[in-house]
Amino acid sequence: MTFDFAIGANLRKSPYFDATLRAGVKSFSVYNHMLIPAHFGDPDAEYQRLMTGVAMWDVAAQRQVEISGPDAARLVQYITPRNLDGTRVGQGRYVPICDHDGWLINDPVLLKLADDRFWLSVADSDLHLWCQAIAREKGWKARVSEPDVAPLAIQGPLAADVTAALFGDWVRELQYFGFRETNLDGIPLVLARSGWSKQGGYELYLTDGRHGSALWDKVAAAGAAFGIGPGAPNDIERVESGLISYGSDMRWQVIPADPFEMGIGALVDLDRADDYVGREALREKSARGLQRRRTGFWVEGRPTSPGHPVPVHLDGVAVGVVSELVFSPRLGRSIALGLLRADLGDETAGLCLDLPEGRVGLRPTPLPFKP
Amino acid sequence: MTFDFAIGANLRKSPYFDATLRAGVKSFSVYNHMLIPAHFGDPDAEYQRLMTGVAMWDVAAQRQVEISGPDAARLVQYITPRNLDGTRVGQGRYVPICDHDGWLINDPVLLKLADDRFWLSVADSDLHLWCQAIAREKGWKARVSEPDVAPLAIQGPLAADVTAALFGDWVRELQYFGFRETNLDGIPLVLARSGWSKQGGYELYLTDGRHGSALWDKVAAAGAAFGIGPGAPNDIERVESGLISYGSDMRWQVIPADPFEMGIGALVDLDRADDYVGREALREKSARGLQRRRTGFWVEGRPTSPGHPVPVHLDGVAVGVVSELVFSPRLGRSIALGLLRADLGDETAGLCLDLPEGRVGLRPTPLPFKP
Repeated sequence: MTFDFAIGANLRKSPYFDATLRAGVKSFSVYNHMLIPAHFGDPDAEYQRLMTGVAMWDVAAQRQVEISGPDAARLVQYITPRNLDGTRVGQGRYVPICDHDGWLINDPVLLKLADDRFWLSVADSDLHLWCQAIAREKGWKARVSEPDVAPLAIQGPLAADVTAALFGDWVRELQYFGFRETNLDGIPLVLARSGWSKQGGYELYLTDGRHGSALWDKVAAAGAAFGIGPGAPNDIERVESGLISYGSDMRWQVIPADPFEMGIGALVDLDRADDYVGREALREKSARGLQRRRTGFWVEGRPTSPGHPVPVHLDGVAVGVVSELVFSPRLGRSIALGLLRADLGDETAGLCLDLPEGRVGLRPTPLPFKP
Repeated sequence: MTFDFAIGANLRKSPYFDATLRAGVKSFSVYNHMLIPAHFGDPDAEYQRLMTGVAMWDVAAQRQVEISGPDAARLVQYITPRNLDGTRVGQGRYVPICDHDGWLINDPVLLKLADDRFWLSVADSDLHLWCQAIAREKGWKARVSEPDVAPLAIQGPLAADVTAALFGDWVRELQYFGFRETNLDGIPLVLARSGWSKQGGYELYLTDGRHGSALWDKVAAAGAAFGIGPGAPNDIERVESGLISYGSDMRWQVIPADPFEMGIGALVDLDRADDYVGREALREKSARGLQRRRTGFWVEGRPTSPGHPVPVHLDGVAVGVVSELVFSPRLGRSIALGLLRADLGDETAGLCLDLPEGRVGLRPTPLPFKP
């Protein structure tokens, strides 16, 4: 089903909006109250470009929550169960954020810009409101803001070539999640080795939105020799790779889930000496043991993606949920991501999903999917 | 410009989604991470129905943040500058919510369901995260949740007739923002005299999403004799009426604004004996005097709605912002909402807006617009 998109005044436009119009964007979605391109008219070619070449994506909707000031480091450490000891300036880290009950409310990448200045590159929830409430109720000297920062992603096996052509070969030496403040012909940005795919790449965090079109054009020009083309964060690739999507795989209001269930429990430091949000709840969850586990599913047939969570049944009992279902060109079959009762192993037979086209069978399989 | 809409897995569907498909929805937008119908193919007829007849709207995206427990009343009073003394069970109140710096972060209607149970019927931001952070950092016994509640609005001059046909004539006696828990042939709901238009009407807060299609069909059937038809919150009518839209007219990240600037300063009680979020900041703002004021604008010509905020200029200097611009059928001319430097009165000449089709002149005028 396709529908017109009503670009309401409550939806923000990215600094790359005009450039994506010129590039022929055909479909939008919404993320963090901002329009984000969904595809440019040929989803199959866009997937192939990501898997075998190089793609450029407007991911300005991945907003930055900036935390700065004398108590910034203290606040950042307090809001995540991950132990940030030893994090250096220029280093990024994936940080689950849990509420006081231990439920995930976002899973940003943290960028340490200075000892007293951080960005949280956030998934689809208003994390700034929560951070700000905590900082102010604690009485800490930490300012929470959303700066003028708009990431443009270069993703795919040839991303390093394009990025090196733009910035020089030093970009090849950047560690994963490493970043550096730099500029491109005077356009200020933070260059990070990161991106929401497993095909490798970089994100250019533009720090002055007036240069959106200019930056887009420079990347397109440098990438032309490598066959670069426009695209968008790719649902098929992310399901194949097992990447977590806050808002899709879990959301506080829809599918509450904790870091253990989501398979990122190793990032939770239950033994930290300092207090942090959700510590007691996470200790209790850990002590109680895993009730559900994140898993991939092989899906029978080639059903249409339902576009919303669907319960997984076993003998008429709900035992889990499928959060996203796609057909994988690489694997030649339908696959899904979801949560399953933890006592049910990969050999479990009889799992099924009721879809508009009928009942289909499911079989659990570890992530990422293997042919 | 129209684009396809990509219904991503991170966007929730309303309990009325299937019913709106049947009713021929043609365009969606997104609000509170949920799809919301934008129109059903004939925006002019939908506007006329609201102004002269009766319309039904899926406004499930107007989510409820429920606050319950022994400290619920204390929390609710702490998070708004409005004095809630004397609020009775069954009464709703419009409550600006400001952050600790006095900036608006939402402007819900508060429904007092019991002395220890409230709903905040929220505009487009994740207010639950902020409420929850405050409750837990305070150590108060107040639970914050998002219950299974989905409003369906009946709006327009004939809304009372339709609603009375469904529930009985008692609905005509309800005060504005008054509500009652009831049911329709066993479908549980809260019936409120409210809605996001100035044409009058009701909202049916369905409290069990499984009955979405059934409730929609009952309203459509009872409304048939009155010419009811599907529609959506109407941008043109709301601009004509001067209704505030958080997310469009102001948003913490885009157009920060305080209650005084937005013309709802009368709801701020600076003299309350109890502490509340933002009290000191609001006192300072009040003492400093108004810097900007909310106003309507008559707009020269008939320019296309830009779909994003545009600065207002006077002699080359930015002196305000237009947040939404529409052509008003009722007034036969283009109108806009926005903020203007407070020292500039309605007689100010030379205000202008630079739009893609060129420069257009503006003249301030009080809200709501008068012919």
